[in-house]
Amino acid sequence: MEDKIIELIEKVKKQSPLVHSIMNYVTINDCANVLLAVGASPIMADAPMEVEEITAMADALVLNTGTLKSWSKDSMICAGKVANQKGIPVILDPVGVGASRLRKQTVQDILNQVRITVIRGNRSEIAWVAGVETLSTGVDCFEKSSLEKEIELAKKAASKWNTTVAVTGTVDVITDGNQLIKIYNGTSMLSKVTGTGCMTTALIGAFLAEGTSMTAAVAGVSMMGIAGEIAQERAGSIGMGSFKVELMNVLSQMNGEKIREKLKIEKE
Amino acid sequence: MEDKIIELIEKVKKQSPLVHSIMNYVTINDCANVLLAVGASPIMADAPMEVEEITAMADALVLNTGTLKSWSKDSMICAGKVANQKGIPVILDPVGVGASRLRKQTVQDILNQVRITVIRGNRSEIAWVAGVETLSTGVDCFEKSSLEKEIELAKKAASKWNTTVAVTGTVDVITDGNQLIKIYNGTSMLSKVTGTGCMTTALIGAFLAEGTSMTAAVAGVSMMGIAGEIAQERAGSIGMGSFKVELMNVLSQMNGEKIREKLKIEKE
Amino acid sequence: MEDKIIELIEKVKKQSPLVHSIMNYVTINDCANVLLAVGASPIMADAPMEVEEITAMADALVLNTGTLKSWSKDSMICAGKVANQKGIPVILDPVGVGASRLRKQTVQDILNQVRITVIRGNRSEIAWVAGVETLSTGVDCFEKSSLEKEIELAKKAASKWNTTVAVTGTVDVITDGNQLIKIYNGTSMLSKVTGTGCMTTALIGAFLAEGTSMTAAVAGVSMMGIAGEIAQERAGSIGMGSFKVELMNVLSQMNGEKIREKLKIEKE
Repeated sequence: MEDKIIELIEKVKKQSPLVHSIMNYVTINDCANVLLAVGASPIMADAPMEVEEITAMADALVLNTGTLKSWSKDSMICAGKVANQKGIPVILDPVGVGASRLRKQTVQDILNQVRITVIRGNRSEIAWVAGVETLSTGVDCFEKSSLEKEIELAKKAASKWNTTVAVTGTVDVITDGNQLIKIYNGTSMLSKVTGTGCMTTALIGAFLAEGTSMTAAVAGVSMMGIAGEIAQERAGSIGMGSFKVELMNVLSQMNGEKIREKLKIEKE
Repeated sequence: MEDKIIELIEKVKKQSPLVHSIMNYVTINDCANVLLAVGASPIMADAPMEVEEITAMADALVLNTGTLKSWSKDSMICAGKVANQKGIPVILDPVGVGASRLRKQTVQDILNQVRITVIRGNRSEIAWVAGVETLSTGVDCFEKSSLEKEIELAKKAASKWNTTVAVTGTVDVITDGNQLIKIYNGTSMLSKVTGTGCMTTALIGAFLAEGTSMTAAVAGVSMMGIAGEIAQERAGSIGMGSFKVELMNVLSQMNGEKIREKLKIEKE
Repeated sequence: MEDKIIELIEKVKKQSPLVHSIMNYVTINDCANVLLAVGASPIMADAPMEVEEITAMADALVLNTGTLKSWSKDSMICAGKVANQKGIPVILDPVGVGASRLRKQTVQDILNQVRITVIRGNRSEIAWVAGVETLSTGVDCFEKSSLEKEIELAKKAASKWNTTVAVTGTVDVITDGNQLIKIYNGTSMLSKVTGTGCMTTALIGAFLAEGTSMTAAVAGVSMMGIAGEIAQERAGSIGMGSFKVELMNVLSQMNGEKIREKLKIEKE
C-alpha cells in the first residue's frame, strides 16, 4: 500500500487532474489551496445552471454538505448524475448530516440517486449514513466507543451503499466492505483548525481522479494525518495560526520519503 | 472583572459550547477558527430551511449582516426567534448597517422581532442602532469625536433596545445602559486585517454561552485587544500576513496570566 | 512609468478609496485583505437588492465571475450600470469564462451593457473576451504559444471592447490597444496559491480609484509580481503556507524602494 500511495501522489502531481468541488463557504479557500498543494487543479462552482458543464470536464467531483442551501442540493444531485454518466469518481462529505432535515434529505437523495465512489466523514456522520441513529451536532458528539464500533459502522455504511467509506477520528478506518485499513497517523491539533475534514475529502478527490477508491482514500487520509504530525512538530507549541501555515507547507512538499518515514497503517 | 473574565475563558474551554453563526462569507473561515481557538464548537449554517433546527441545539447564536442576502435576512429573524423561545443568547453584529436599505431594514426588523443580548459594532454602526443619523460606508467614517460621544451613543443604543452594547474603536465601550466599562487594549493593526470585528463578535458569542452579557462582552473585546497587542509585539514590523497568523496563535493560547498582565479596563 | 506607479501607491495609501467588490466566495477574504494591505477600504456586497446603493458610494467597482450565480450576474450588471452613470471605474475579472454558458453569457452581457475600464485575466480568459475560441477549464489550458500570440489577443480584446486589458502569465501584457507594456516580474509560485489572479484584479481596482487605466493595471500587476518574488526569496523553499503569509507581508509593506529595485517592465 505504501508504494501505491507514493505512486499515486506522483501521478497526481504529473497529471494535475481537474477537481470540481461543490463546497461549503467556510472551508472553500483552504480546500482549493490543498488541491493546488498536491498538484491538482481546483474548480469551485455550485450554481445549478453551470454544474453540469463543469462536472463534465472534470476528473473528479467533490460534494460537501456544509453551509448547504436548497439550490446547492439540486446542484449536487445534477453534478453527481453527470459524473456517473461520464464515469467520473464522486466523493461525498456529509458534513453535519444529522443536524437538520435539509442535510438529511440531501444526503439521502444523493445516496439514492448518485453512485458514490467514496464517503468520508466523522463517526457521527458515518453512523447516520449507515442508518444508525445518533444525536449529531455537526460535531462528533458520539459517545466514546471502541474502535470496533467504528469499524462496524464503516462496514455497514460501505455495504449499504456499495461504496468505500473513510471514517476519520483518533484512528481512521477505511473499508470497501471487504478490505479494511486502519490508519494511526494524525494529531488532535487537526481538530483545532476548521476544515481539516473537508480538506481530507478534497485530497481524496484529487487522488480518486488517478487511483482506485481504497488507495485514494488511504492516500488522502494518511497524507493529512502525516502532514498534521509534521506541522505539530514544527509549530504545535506556538499556536493554531502557525500550525495551519505549517500544515499547508507540509502538504505542498509531501513526498515519498516522508510517507515512508511516517505512515502507520494496519491491514486487516 | 478580571477574575470573572479568566473564569469565563476557562469555562468555555471546558464546556465547549456550540455556537451557531449566520455569517458573512468574507470572514466566515476566520470566525470558525477563532471559535475553535477559544474552545467553542462552531456551526455555520444560513439556509432558511435549516436554521431553526440548528439554533435549537446551539448554546449561542451570532447574527452578522455582512454580505447579506434577502434570504439570509429571513434566516436571521427565524433563528433569532427560536433562540428567544429557548433562552439562547443572541449577539448581533450590524456590519455596515448604514450602507443600504437592505441592511437597515434587516437590522431594524431583527431588533423589532428578536431580543438581542449583545450588539457589537463600530461607532457608525452603533450610532445607526441608536437612531442617530450618520453617513456610513461600512467603514467607520464618523467624524473624529470624543470618547464622550461614543459613550453617549452606546448608552442610547443600550437603553433604546434594552440590551448590552459594545462599541469597538480606539477605546472600546461596553454598557448595558447602567454599568459602563472602557477597554484600553488593542492596536491599530487590528483594523488592517479584515474581520477582526466579526471575530470579536464571534468571541463574545462563545462567552455569552457561559456568562452574563457584560462579562461576555468585556471578555470578547478585551481578549481580541490583548491578542492584537501581543501579535503586534511578535509580528508587527514584519507585515499583515504574519500579524494575522500570530493573532490566531495568541487567541489559541490565551490564558489567565496574559489577561492579568495586559488587561486595561476602567469601570465607571 | 516607475514614478507614476510609486506615486499611485502613495495616493491610494493616503486616500483610502472605497472599493466595492462583487466577488467569488473562494478568494473573497484574501481579496479584502489585499485591499487593506495597500491602504484601500474593501466593501464586499453582492445581493441584487443592495449593490446599487453600495456601488454609488464607492470609488471603484470590481466584478469577478468565480462561483457565479444567476442572481450575482444581475448584481454585476446593475452595479456596473450605476458605476458608469457615476463615472466610477469598473474592472472585470472573467474567471473561467469558457467553463460554462452561465459564465459566457454573464461576461457577454456585462461587456455589452457596461463600459469596462480594465479587464484582467489569463490567456484563455482574454482569448474568449477577444472572441477567439479556446477550450477553457477555468485554468490556463491554452497550448503554449508565443508571447506574440498573447500580445495579439490582448490588443484584439482591448480594441473590441475599447478598454484596457491585462493578461497575466509568465510575461504579463498590458495594453489599451495603442500603448503596450510587458511586465517580467513574478514567479510560478503565484500559481500555487488560489486567488492570486483575483487579488491582482482587486489591486488594480484600488489603483483605478486614483489613477488612469494603464498606470493602475501596470501598478496592480507588477506589485503582485514583485511581492511574489520577494515572498519566494523569503519562504519559497519552506512551502505554500509560508509563501502566502509572506505575500501578504510584502504587499502590506510595499514601497517605492522595492518597486525601484525590482520592477522589470518594457514599453513598446
